[in-house]
Amino acid sequence: MTDLFTLTPTQYSLVLNVLNLSIGAFGAFTLLFILLRRNVARNYSIAISLMAAVTTMAAYHYFRLYGSWLDAYALQGGQHIPTGAAFNYVLRYADWLGTVPLLLSAIMLVLDLGRQQSASLVTRMATSAVLMIGLGYIGEVQGDNLGGRAVWGLLACIPFLYILYVLWGEMSRVLSFESVRVRQLFSRLRWVLLASWIFYPVIYALPILGISGPNVLTLVQVCNSAADLLAKVGVGLLILGIAREKTEEDLAAASRTEKAQTAGMPVPVAAD
Amino acid sequence: MTDLFTLTPTQYSLVLNVLNLSIGAFGAFTLLFILLRRNVARNYSIAISLMAAVTTMAAYHYFRLYGSWLDAYALQGGQHIPTGAAFNYVLRYADWLGTVPLLLSAIMLVLDLGRQQSASLVTRMATSAVLMIGLGYIGEVQGDNLGGRAVWGLLACIPFLYILYVLWGEMSRVLSFESVRVRQLFSRLRWVLLASWIFYPVIYALPILGISGPNVLTLVQVCNSAADLLAKVGVGLLILGIAREKTEEDLAAASRTEKAQTAGMPVPVAAD
Repeated sequence: MTDLFTLTPTQYSLVLNVLNLSIGAFGAFTLLFILLRRNVARNYSIAISLMAAVTTMAAYHYFRLYGSWLDAYALQGGQHIPTGAAFNYVLRYADWLGTVPLLLSAIMLVLDLGRQQSASLVTRMATSAVLMIGLGYIGEVQGDNLGGRAVWGLLACIPFLYILYVLWGEMSRVLSFESVRVRQLFSRLRWVLLASWIFYPVIYALPILGISGPNVLTLVQVCNSAADLLAKVGVGLLILGIAREKTEEDLAAASRTEKAQTAGMPVPVAAD
Repeated sequence: MTDLFTLTPTQYSLVLNVLNLSIGAFGAFTLLFILLRRNVARNYSIAISLMAAVTTMAAYHYFRLYGSWLDAYALQGGQHIPTGAAFNYVLRYADWLGTVPLLLSAIMLVLDLGRQQSASLVTRMATSAVLMIGLGYIGEVQGDNLGGRAVWGLLACIPFLYILYVLWGEMSRVLSFESVRVRQLFSRLRWVLLASWIFYPVIYALPILGISGPNVLTLVQVCNSAADLLAKVGVGLLILGIAREKTEEDLAAASRTEKAQTAGMPVPVAAD
């Protein structure tokens, strides 16, 4: 799919090790999310469980991507030469098709809004994500048809913009019922997500702009992996932060209610 | 088994990555079902545990299917040429033989009907599933004997129709005792299951209708995988939704009973 160029050992091993770092990080954060979901109230732990699913899926796909990178190159005279085996770059789309709907669902579920509101948000976000990535995939496999690549890419921007609209428009109204601290964390989460997602359309546009070469190839793989780490691990940690904050707020509220009840109750009952 | 055709990189990698997406998704949802079964009452968690077993079995079989796909093709001059190694398509039947009875059992068990009723439903559904897939398998391995394929396929429709009869006929009576929300979720589950199962007979009939070629080969693998994801992950999420709904209904009922008791009891006891 992607054109491969002869790489220097530095370029080749940079990609190899960024992929390796990603596999290790996604595996480790899967474990961390599994372990830490117990540190938040049950309602919020669903979002943490979803994040564990996201990182475990990513770990597997990066493991395959790593294998594909090994197959695609052979060391000859101190240079890494393409073997002719395709580097399965579009595997990233397969990964996003599974992980992005789960990630967006986790973001929607960590606030523990009412069942109906959550269901509606999760459905719309997951559907938009599938559309965005599906359309991007069609554009990605257009090969030399750069016009087609551009058109499908622009179509993929529609669900992308809808997701941003929900995160900044609709969610802002929802957040008005949350504490200042939760609003801060959620706002940071939105910006981290956007910062990571900004990489993808830029990388997608490079072939259209005629930008290629060994340095670009290397940089694209590094940036894609960095963006994935930011979107999955970075956003996951912010989801964890929101879940912990809301857990503590719930506990504080509960103890206030209890105190109030206790105050207004006859002694024998208060004894409980 | 299935006739293989020379494929373009786009066709070949589409199948490769749909298989990869499936392995990742089944693996991730196995973890998710294991983690989330704690978020529902114990009676309903049995169904969620069954779903974890379904997805883990599917992950393994897709892993093998992926390996078989790699062995079946070699890249030559930019095209993917069949190597002569058979693509083990019927492995899908081995998977269904294990996963479909478990899936149907999970659907029957999530309602937590009485032991006897559950046992009867599970036995009949699991037996029908084994018959349906067993007969389909015999038809699948008939090779060029398309008449035989048709006959065995029609025989497989009998248990298939019986399963639909139980889901729409018998279960509708059972559901009349459930809340509106549970009935809605179960009804959606039935339709998602049917929507996914509709793929299989159509795909099975293609050779009889003389429809084949590289695009068909590609599309069949993509549709089969999509149908499996819908039937296992999609239905699994709806089972999870029903389990959560019934858990909350039980809790609500319990707290009502408790309030009633408390109200009717002398103060010191109320302290308890």
